[in-house]
Amino acid sequence: MHITCGFDSGNIKVIEAKSEQQIRLEINRDAHSDFYQWFHFRLTGTPGVTHRCHLEKLDQSAYPLGWQDYHVVASYDCKNWFRVPSQYADGTLSFELQLAHASVFFAYFTPYSSDRHLRLLHQSQCHPRCQLKQLGLTHDGRDIAMLTIGEPTPEKKAVWVTARQHPGETMAEWCAEGLIQRLLNDNDGVAQALLAEAVFYVVPNMNPDGSARGHLRTNALGINLNREWATPSLEQSPEVFHVLNEMQTTGVDIFLDLHGDEALPYNFVAGCEGIPNYTEKLASLESLFKQTLISATPEFQDVYGYPKDQPGKANLSIANNAVANRFGCLSFTLEMPFKDNADLPNTKTGWSAPRSHQLGEDLLIAIRAVLCNLN
Amino acid sequence: MHITCGFDSGNIKVIEAKSEQQIRLEINRDAHSDFYQWFHFRLTGTPGVTHRCHLEKLDQSAYPLGWQDYHVVASYDCKNWFRVPSQYADGTLSFELQLAHASVFFAYFTPYSSDRHLRLLHQSQCHPRCQLKQLGLTHDGRDIAMLTIGEPTPEKKAVWVTARQHPGETMAEWCAEGLIQRLLNDNDGVAQALLAEAVFYVVPNMNPDGSARGHLRTNALGINLNREWATPSLEQSPEVFHVLNEMQTTGVDIFLDLHGDEALPYNFVAGCEGIPNYTEKLASLESLFKQTLISATPEFQDVYGYPKDQPGKANLSIANNAVANRFGCLSFTLEMPFKDNADLPNTKTGWSAPRSHQLGEDLLIAIRAVLCNLN
Amino acid sequence: MHITCGFDSGNIKVIEAKSEQQIRLEINRDAHSDFYQWFHFRLTGTPGVTHRCHLEKLDQSAYPLGWQDYHVVASYDCKNWFRVPSQYADGTLSFELQLAHASVFFAYFTPYSSDRHLRLLHQSQCHPRCQLKQLGLTHDGRDIAMLTIGEPTPEKKAVWVTARQHPGETMAEWCAEGLIQRLLNDNDGVAQALLAEAVFYVVPNMNPDGSARGHLRTNALGINLNREWATPSLEQSPEVFHVLNEMQTTGVDIFLDLHGDEALPYNFVAGCEGIPNYTEKLASLESLFKQTLISATPEFQDVYGYPKDQPGKANLSIANNAVANRFGCLSFTLEMPFKDNADLPNTKTGWSAPRSHQLGEDLLIAIRAVLCNLN
Amino acid sequence: MHITCGFDSGNIKVIEAKSEQQIRLEINRDAHSDFYQWFHFRLTGTPGVTHRCHLEKLDQSAYPLGWQDYHVVASYDCKNWFRVPSQYADGTLSFELQLAHASVFFAYFTPYSSDRHLRLLHQSQCHPRCQLKQLGLTHDGRDIAMLTIGEPTPEKKAVWVTARQHPGETMAEWCAEGLIQRLLNDNDGVAQALLAEAVFYVVPNMNPDGSARGHLRTNALGINLNREWATPSLEQSPEVFHVLNEMQTTGVDIFLDLHGDEALPYNFVAGCEGIPNYTEKLASLESLFKQTLISATPEFQDVYGYPKDQPGKANLSIANNAVANRFGCLSFTLEMPFKDNADLPNTKTGWSAPRSHQLGEDLLIAIRAVLCNLN
Repeated sequence: MHITCGFDSGNIKVIEAKSEQQIRLEINRDAHSDFYQWFHFRLTGTPGVTHRCHLEKLDQSAYPLGWQDYHVVASYDCKNWFRVPSQYADGTLSFELQLAHASVFFAYFTPYSSDRHLRLLHQSQCHPRCQLKQLGLTHDGRDIAMLTIGEPTPEKKAVWVTARQHPGETMAEWCAEGLIQRLLNDNDGVAQALLAEAVFYVVPNMNPDGSARGHLRTNALGINLNREWATPSLEQSPEVFHVLNEMQTTGVDIFLDLHGDEALPYNFVAGCEGIPNYTEKLASLESLFKQTLISATPEFQDVYGYPKDQPGKANLSIANNAVANRFGCLSFTLEMPFKDNADLPNTKTGWSAPRSHQLGEDLLIAIRAVLCNLN
Repeated sequence: MHITCGFDSGNIKVIEAKSEQQIRLEINRDAHSDFYQWFHFRLTGTPGVTHRCHLEKLDQSAYPLGWQDYHVVASYDCKNWFRVPSQYADGTLSFELQLAHASVFFAYFTPYSSDRHLRLLHQSQCHPRCQLKQLGLTHDGRDIAMLTIGEPTPEKKAVWVTARQHPGETMAEWCAEGLIQRLLNDNDGVAQALLAEAVFYVVPNMNPDGSARGHLRTNALGINLNREWATPSLEQSPEVFHVLNEMQTTGVDIFLDLHGDEALPYNFVAGCEGIPNYTEKLASLESLFKQTLISATPEFQDVYGYPKDQPGKANLSIANNAVANRFGCLSFTLEMPFKDNADLPNTKTGWSAPRSHQLGEDLLIAIRAVLCNLN
Repeated sequence: MHITCGFDSGNIKVIEAKSEQQIRLEINRDAHSDFYQWFHFRLTGTPGVTHRCHLEKLDQSAYPLGWQDYHVVASYDCKNWFRVPSQYADGTLSFELQLAHASVFFAYFTPYSSDRHLRLLHQSQCHPRCQLKQLGLTHDGRDIAMLTIGEPTPEKKAVWVTARQHPGETMAEWCAEGLIQRLLNDNDGVAQALLAEAVFYVVPNMNPDGSARGHLRTNALGINLNREWATPSLEQSPEVFHVLNEMQTTGVDIFLDLHGDEALPYNFVAGCEGIPNYTEKLASLESLFKQTLISATPEFQDVYGYPKDQPGKANLSIANNAVANRFGCLSFTLEMPFKDNADLPNTKTGWSAPRSHQLGEDLLIAIRAVLCNLN
Repeated sequence: MHITCGFDSGNIKVIEAKSEQQIRLEINRDAHSDFYQWFHFRLTGTPGVTHRCHLEKLDQSAYPLGWQDYHVVASYDCKNWFRVPSQYADGTLSFELQLAHASVFFAYFTPYSSDRHLRLLHQSQCHPRCQLKQLGLTHDGRDIAMLTIGEPTPEKKAVWVTARQHPGETMAEWCAEGLIQRLLNDNDGVAQALLAEAVFYVVPNMNPDGSARGHLRTNALGINLNREWATPSLEQSPEVFHVLNEMQTTGVDIFLDLHGDEALPYNFVAGCEGIPNYTEKLASLESLFKQTLISATPEFQDVYGYPKDQPGKANLSIANNAVANRFGCLSFTLEMPFKDNADLPNTKTGWSAPRSHQLGEDLLIAIRAVLCNLN
């Protein structure tokens, strides 16, 4: 039996692995940071034998409540990912699997690899309606890449979508992929109607360093990018610095920042009701967006979510609030579950990459509703 | 140069074809009927040479107004279909094409072959949520086939979808295909939510004889099936007879009958406002369906359509009205254009098979909205 | 329970079908002919129930010995075809199947539909190295179609491939498909080397009327095309007439005529050793072809096959001999089994469409060996 | 304009990149080594603008003669790779490209990423005939992985295939992929015949550390693995150490070690004629293998290649010789070109990933010929 994590976004520490009955593991902290919750490793063992894993010291992890009712994601073929029933107690997540094949990957959520990220960017740029732009470089020397979809004209609205500021929230990039690929579908009416009125600026991975390193929440320097939007710096948060600069150039009419939430088993959005510049117009657009998305898919709801900010009390270092306040635009943080959608549970897969992808497609329906009502 | 139609749904009569400059053609009438408008033929000629076709005597065709602003559909590879600019005047539709390859298919709309029909049925039946049922036989000995999607229970609603009563309206089966395949997508939340509440009964091709024969509007006996719903007979309209029988067994809560319209360049529905049993509840459900579909896709609209029936004046031999009146259910005829959607024009393809397929997927969003409000 | 054959290449006669235990069937003769052996029907019944079929009066069929050790081919999804264990005795082939799904197709061999035939032709013609030519029309008005692959020049050799003179031998068109598609693969070295030296003329279906009608061996007029090559006529055998005419124009350096054999469980070729114009050079090329193919694939062998013709005693009405004698070229009839390859048995599929396709690819290796030695 | 290599197998050093006219680049040495020749970088610039790159100091690279007549490989979509005409003079390789899209990858040969490597392993292991085994760990903590294809029994021969000891020779893994996937094709007769007689042990990537790091020839410690086979050590060359151990367990009857050659524009093999244990039997098997492969594909030849070793003078630290000498087995180093196959040149792609893949498939034909003659 071997347990390894020497690959893209790998993260595990083996404490003890002498017996298949008792595999004790821990998660490494993000570099220069105390955050940890993302894990991704490969176990090679004997087919037919049950392997019992214990992921320990989770009471100190970034969001300990996230482990309750959470089930590990696994795959034998790197393509189909399924849930392995897991139990959380006393800071330890335990799960066991009788191996169907010799090697299995376990992860916090279906990984979205750096390789797939580059293929998404480059296949997209070959579509005549899409351009790839390098906004700058990360600390580790990776590209901060944006896709411009649609042909900019002065009249068109600017729709911004960012994903995966927190690199462990891989569902955010699966979701961005769905949104991008629907926009590039020439036969899709929603895409055609949107691109007649708007240009999309999509950053499918805000944090490529953290993604490759197997971080949960920070970049290579241990910085939580979603607390950097008040005063991003080229030194500490070049990812935010460059994106915000680009936003200044294009303007922003609608902003969606895609995330995963460790605790709530629902898809939901957090608005910008707490920003100083909040308006009734924004409130009404927020409502329209949510109602349309509820109508478009049962995967979305507005019953469960984060507590609302008090008026004027929004944290302006958070992307969603910062952008809304600066540009006076409709702005949401979209949260997808690491667990499942309790409104539509699927015990085999839980919330999954394909469902995130589909939600990305459906987001366009809600964006269209808002776009028609922007002026 | 050769012009042939010896294949599934082929229909053409060559009047004169001595010169590529002057190819004179007519359309054969449906057997035992005066209807004609569907054509489908193959032209083999010299690549690089321009071929000028004249489709004549169209002033007597089933719907002469349909030729105005209509452009012929063509394909070199049986997969990608494009529009060939066409002009209609004095009963003749003229179009020319410089051949890129030696053989090209022309048709009134992208064909949906009997072969693809059988593959759709049989690939679908292999999904665990789907069953194929043979309801009876046509005059020519073809199967009248229904797909049951979802597991029937007493509480579940019955959603019925029929397509292609008029065999030349092939977009109807492309649309049915989209609806069926989305329902069978395990990762699709809309499908999962619907199948928790409803069972779908889908007849993707109501008229397999007319389809294979290259008819526009009738079955092998020259009968317009969509005028048979008051008193279908095993002799003349077994297709309707068997389907209506099955409806009696399952009940009907929602009914969609999918069609193509020769004239209007829009997608729209016709309701059952003229039936004796019309109610305010039905009116409200109709409105909800339409508003939801408008919100889900710009391909649908409710501005252009057929004139409304006067109260109590509905033609009860038409499927939509007959079923609505008998079962007291929400019931629509959905019409898709042979031309284009003027709200979202695409000069390359016009309205197309992929767009019909996508509309079939989007219909599920509107069905879900209604389903939640049925009780 | 229903049994139908109202579709492309369908052929069955129901004698009795009151009970799933006792389904009695016969095969219809080819029109204007006594041949029968091809069958293709659809059975719709109750999943979970075992259906017992008896195909009767086979002692009068075209090749009664073919039923010994033969197993029926079936499919639930029109894509994956499997063998159903069958027993032959006293002129009756019996087989039973517990239905996994409501509808199942049974056939003598995996069908190659008219629809797929047209798609093969038209997708191929869109490749820059391929041209489609209509050689003439069949009695039923179908196109006799040839693909020219490669750019003809005076120095290049002419390689002719015909398939499915006998329409029930569908493996011949599966094989032709494999050969065509490998020739059109830009990354395939064998194809590139061949097309530098030769042009391929491929008629993937010599008998489209018989194919659509569900015939075993004849065209629409009941004519066995492979006995027409001495004196083909426009009236009785336009298929042969037009192909032979085209051969006169192009010349022939190598000729392969693809067939299926009802009896022998092997792939093998029959040469032209009995023609008047036979030479040692031809004998040596035949040997080279066979040795190369044996080396390229264990699916081919030269132990079992037809008895050799005596010198000068060849039947010159057979394509293989007629073409060899007229053009002095290497010429083979390739026979594939309806049963299995006994050298490499596969009880699940027997000899199959994918194996025929692969053999078509492998034929190119043997053709290349010969081509290098033609001069 | 930006030039980056912060991704899997990336390797470039930017010397000067102020102007698109004058982009000066160098290649980084393999860690702890002087070897360098592999490069892989991404250039982001302005579409429509011509970018002129100069890869400098190549006269000190691992194989300076390799740059003559070599053309750089590039891709806009990470899927289709094409050649960019390049000139070599005075230690500098110069090439220019007018950008069709904003971002383009350049590489020494089409990369085979670590991500694809893991997908190959894991998709393969899900086939019932295939097992994945972890043999050990590299210095960087990556898995040394072997696929066992076929069911071992005492009578079966052991065929070993290793690829990419030199990580920059990515064609070796493309070739291994072709060989593996053909072996797993249930419809392929060659595969079935082989697996009845033999078991395949395939290590598709002998050097995963060097691959991920963007090395040309060495592992993470700067060791050239193909000089380690006399005395591999767990410390310096665990990759060879573990593979050789496994070979001891399974035995070896045939061994192929897959490589790329910088200089010769041909596919060829180097045998083991210089080993002390060389025999006439081996010579005869070598000849059979080569003749069969020449017959199977024009991509292979035996005219151009390495000089033969003198009897008894083989370097036994090289895999091919070491394994042959130890196991008395047929053993080849297969070399594929970085340039093109001069016998079958393709100016668009040169020698390519798809051609390497196809050669991997074709190797099985030659292996089968030998296998039949082993005893």
